[in-house]
Amino acid sequence: MANESPESTDDLPTPALVVDAAVLDANLAAMDAVLPGRRLRPHVKAFKSTALASRLASDGHTGFCAATPREVEGLVAAGLTDDLLLANESLDVARLGELADLAQITVAVDSEETLDAAIAGGIRHVLIDVEVGLPRCGCSPDDAPVLADRARSAGVKVRGVMGYEGHLMMVDDRTDRIARVEESMQILRDAHDRVGGEIVSGGGTGTFDTNTWCTEIQAGSYTLMDTHYDGLDLPFRPATSLLGTVISVSAKGWIVVDVGLKAVGMDHGDPSWSHGDVFFLSDEHATLVPTDGSTWRVGDRTRLTPAHIDPTVARHEVMWLVVGDAVVDRWAIDLRHW
Amino acid sequence: MANESPESTDDLPTPALVVDAAVLDANLAAMDAVLPGRRLRPHVKAFKSTALASRLASDGHTGFCAATPREVEGLVAAGLTDDLLLANESLDVARLGELADLAQITVAVDSEETLDAAIAGGIRHVLIDVEVGLPRCGCSPDDAPVLADRARSAGVKVRGVMGYEGHLMMVDDRTDRIARVEESMQILRDAHDRVGGEIVSGGGTGTFDTNTWCTEIQAGSYTLMDTHYDGLDLPFRPATSLLGTVISVSAKGWIVVDVGLKAVGMDHGDPSWSHGDVFFLSDEHATLVPTDGSTWRVGDRTRLTPAHIDPTVARHEVMWLVVGDAVVDRWAIDLRHW
Repeated sequence: MANESPESTDDLPTPALVVDAAVLDANLAAMDAVLPGRRLRPHVKAFKSTALASRLASDGHTGFCAATPREVEGLVAAGLTDDLLLANESLDVARLGELADLAQITVAVDSEETLDAAIAGGIRHVLIDVEVGLPRCGCSPDDAPVLADRARSAGVKVRGVMGYEGHLMMVDDRTDRIARVEESMQILRDAHDRVGGEIVSGGGTGTFDTNTWCTEIQAGSYTLMDTHYDGLDLPFRPATSLLGTVISVSAKGWIVVDVGLKAVGMDHGDPSWSHGDVFFLSDEHATLVPTDGSTWRVGDRTRLTPAHIDPTVARHEVMWLVVGDAVVDRWAIDLRHW
Repeated sequence: MANESPESTDDLPTPALVVDAAVLDANLAAMDAVLPGRRLRPHVKAFKSTALASRLASDGHTGFCAATPREVEGLVAAGLTDDLLLANESLDVARLGELADLAQITVAVDSEETLDAAIAGGIRHVLIDVEVGLPRCGCSPDDAPVLADRARSAGVKVRGVMGYEGHLMMVDDRTDRIARVEESMQILRDAHDRVGGEIVSGGGTGTFDTNTWCTEIQAGSYTLMDTHYDGLDLPFRPATSLLGTVISVSAKGWIVVDVGLKAVGMDHGDPSWSHGDVFFLSDEHATLVPTDGSTWRVGDRTRLTPAHIDPTVARHEVMWLVVGDAVVDRWAIDLRHW
């Protein structure tokens, strides 16, 4: 069985999600320098751990956003109750209404149905979610004040608006990104003018410093980071990798590591390996081809870097904080599932 | 919180993994007709549920194979102890050696290191894993008898050989598939001639009836099935889908369902939707475009069919057995993680 107090990465069961503590610290500091305190609303969907959320709260980022009711419930259970935003539409919000005396909980709404579910479920605060170019959730700017009126008529406080310019996270030219984010946020600000409230919430890791129009930025990936953002001019580096054990070595030139499809999110493509090519992944295997002259023996350990951190984290029960090969902490990934 | 005894799919929290009980029954019957009893060694990695494994055992398929030590541990804990094969290389097998008095446990080995770990870990039975064309685990045919001798010298029983022709699962022309499987299995049979033992283990859902050279077939995906096998001439149909709730409807023509990247394995591509196109998935969203003239309201429910069942199942805590919209059973997915 797994060693519960490993001192070294050599003691970890594999596959294991490991986080370089120094890189994590640097990522948090780089974000904090631009968006201190409540200017940042960390998005827990990216890391799903109340341990990391507590660390962010101790740095002054005490408002959080979440993508699922369960994430909000977990934050409340961890005592992170200052200002929690379900930044997503849900009809299953009565479970959060039950927590209204324990925490300030706000939910996003973009339709009569989601608003009425919030009202019926005892939710006391909402943001009007406005579609700003990403083909996903969000109402039209014209519908936003109508929903706000409906909410206020029911005694629900409308704290403002939110809109996610997710389609612009990966615009690689910074000048172009700024122009397109401004255009997108103009839609949100126009809606805000008609809705009122103190909050204009939006943004993400890719636009954390180019979206200067929101009162708060929803970013989470910057903490653990992944290779998907590599092409951008961001000050964040991948902190997270999948530690695996070499379980087979072929004379034909490949090796097999026990990091497979069940340990890594594949929607952004294969993970990366610093010693060569990732040939393919199976459920519990990665077949790798060294191209740097390195030689490998069964039992050696190596790390892969995931292309998309959010769904990767969601596949693990725990992340291990490491300094080099020393294990310095164990953080439960306790906000998983729904 | 989730209703623990839902009667209808309308009562399920979403996203939910639902299994059509009638299709599952038909898939199991179709396999059983070709590979009765121990001719089939069901691979639990595809469904990760001892409830489904117990159902297979009650049908006479009492030998199982697994991809991780934890899957083997879970089978032992569920009393499915007749004949368990870790059909994968691992150095973390002492945890299975501790169970040797409770169950017959066999592990695959393809190197001195994995064999020595098995010996040191108290494993009493091994199969020699031979590479038969898939660039993954497995020793060369020449190394197989050397490993067998080393095992026997240490008092470990060599039950035979295994080899997985995974590269041939998707050969769409049946005649071509038979020819190539035969060629691949000739390697395994030659190794078997030099190794001995009563077992020649291999195959999978894609070759369940074309691999006639193994004494037992390792198949698991056929139970829950996915769309990846659609092009083949197999008698199995997708039994499993992701039930989601429509959380947003856009006047621009798309709808959003709460089935995202954290609920579905994406390595084989997007899930399918019978009413139209899957535009893209985010962490907790699928943006869908109806093309069949159907209209949708917030709160409606719909199902997506995953392209790869194994990593999809591994993302959920439970699967719900359904007949139409009636929920008839709840099976824990209790063999997850490592």
